[in-house]
Amino acid sequence: MKALVFDGALKLIEDYPDPKAGPGEALVRVKLAGICNTDIEITRGYMDFRGILGHEFVGVVEEAEDGELVGERVVGEINLPCGSCPTCRKGLGNHCPNRKVLGIQGHPGAFAEFLTLPTANLHVVPEGVSDDEAVFVEPLAAACRITRQIQIEPETRVCVLGDGKLGLLAVQVLAPLAAGTTLVGKSIEKMSRVGLPGLERVLTDDLEDTPRFDVVVDCTGNPDGLTTAMRVVRPRGTIVLKTTAAAGKPVNLAPIVVGEVTVVGSRCGPFDEALRLLDEGKVAVAPLVSARFGIDRALEAFEVAQRPDVLKVLIDFAL
Amino acid sequence: MKALVFDGALKLIEDYPDPKAGPGEALVRVKLAGICNTDIEITRGYMDFRGILGHEFVGVVEEAEDGELVGERVVGEINLPCGSCPTCRKGLGNHCPNRKVLGIQGHPGAFAEFLTLPTANLHVVPEGVSDDEAVFVEPLAAACRITRQIQIEPETRVCVLGDGKLGLLAVQVLAPLAAGTTLVGKSIEKMSRVGLPGLERVLTDDLEDTPRFDVVVDCTGNPDGLTTAMRVVRPRGTIVLKTTAAAGKPVNLAPIVVGEVTVVGSRCGPFDEALRLLDEGKVAVAPLVSARFGIDRALEAFEVAQRPDVLKVLIDFAL
Repeated sequence: MKALVFDGALKLIEDYPDPKAGPGEALVRVKLAGICNTDIEITRGYMDFRGILGHEFVGVVEEAEDGELVGERVVGEINLPCGSCPTCRKGLGNHCPNRKVLGIQGHPGAFAEFLTLPTANLHVVPEGVSDDEAVFVEPLAAACRITRQIQIEPETRVCVLGDGKLGLLAVQVLAPLAAGTTLVGKSIEKMSRVGLPGLERVLTDDLEDTPRFDVVVDCTGNPDGLTTAMRVVRPRGTIVLKTTAAAGKPVNLAPIVVGEVTVVGSRCGPFDEALRLLDEGKVAVAPLVSARFGIDRALEAFEVAQRPDVLKVLIDFAL
Repeated sequence: MKALVFDGALKLIEDYPDPKAGPGEALVRVKLAGICNTDIEITRGYMDFRGILGHEFVGVVEEAEDGELVGERVVGEINLPCGSCPTCRKGLGNHCPNRKVLGIQGHPGAFAEFLTLPTANLHVVPEGVSDDEAVFVEPLAAACRITRQIQIEPETRVCVLGDGKLGLLAVQVLAPLAAGTTLVGKSIEKMSRVGLPGLERVLTDDLEDTPRFDVVVDCTGNPDGLTTAMRVVRPRGTIVLKTTAAAGKPVNLAPIVVGEVTVVGSRCGPFDEALRLLDEGKVAVAPLVSARFGIDRALEAFEVAQRPDVLKVLIDFAL
């Protein structure tokens, strides 16, 4: 099969061996896959991953022990826990120290014609959710994760930092829960793609050093995001950290101690909630799609995805 | 009066003007004051403070509008909030953006024969608490603050990083609440000064990279403390950050996101609880006193306080 592989360099391989579904696993034919910043970070050394990249996808089940799944349109959770360690037994499979992660750690990813995943990881996509919407379920679930970790009340003043893909998803999840929400980014054009009533949009350079937000969500993907968050979070407020970018320069964390700020690391989230939001039309993803390429042009897709003016780039296996 | 002043350099001034108590303030004659790492940090540029240093003290009230306070032995909370801003009106006076802080920000400190503080900041010291104990109330309250921010349950595995003054106080507050507690430091001698049954003592260099602790309290006073904490905290565990040391080198915060760790900044705490712990004999401070100097030898006291093998250095106005 055709597959986009990273082995120190990024390569399109035409005759990569088809994967075989192991016990409990399904074989999925990928329809659409999305390029995430994590994929780009991996090509810069993050996670030391080698193999087929990609973890955002929608596809159709080709083979599964559970015959009823065959032919279903599915999305898939990306963590493959061992299931037997103490962490797994506590129900924290997403944090299993032995876990594999689709296209990120020890398990081939979604930028290929076929992938395998445990059937337990799969979620059937409702009819009302399009393929273009379904491919956003993984990052949208990561945005939904925030509301499982901290309480957003109607009077909570929320600030989302970052007008990239995750920022534009997170603000759509959070703004309806809070009375006033501020989105901070580098591009008014990008920030205007989400049409949320009452949303305040502020350019990063215009952000005042007023510690006024109860909750600041760092979706910048940039080590400077935390420094910005510390400038605007109120004393005893909360910073939700989504950025996994490796350290760039020293960060002075004294404001966290002096302001008694809580920093909450936030990663993968609930797929069922993301599917429901899409099914109910509560999150718009179409304005986030910048370009779409066939797998034959996957290297070009990766280049385009790294341009500053570009949001989501899709690899469409029908092209 | 004699006072230890920092004006870019540290100086003992013999004839510093006596302070005058303003409205609502008391004049306190200082008996004993403790040198804190924050004082040392200030002489390295932290907080840009100029004036009389020192914020840990026990003294006797000389003048106060409330006549009953005169003659009482007192300790004092260090934050002087404005009392009228939105933060103060929410009851978060310790985080008032206009606050002054004794010997740290805008208000002369305790390394002098006299200081002033609002009477609302003062706590009368019970008879059963000695001067040597009372001078530890401020840092002990900061240790007690941890238990107001996070829940320590009998099954919570707690790790305290740092065998300095704050680490040795924090471990005495936390160990009795948890079934198993680990203290990590650079000196077995220092760690052995607190005689807690069942306490595990581990040298920093021997600490294994096993993410096994539910709660890790960073009292290292060193930017590396957070990196160490990230190595040993369990997924979805909590790091309590006490270190205000300015940034030294880049810190990779990705483990916070990947492990969904919560970092809680922690500063000043409840004086009443600290006084109660001392009165009930639940915290031993005598083993933490390394040296004691009269105010005439305050410069020498400051030098001694910076030696790695030294814990608390006291300035004793009776000497």
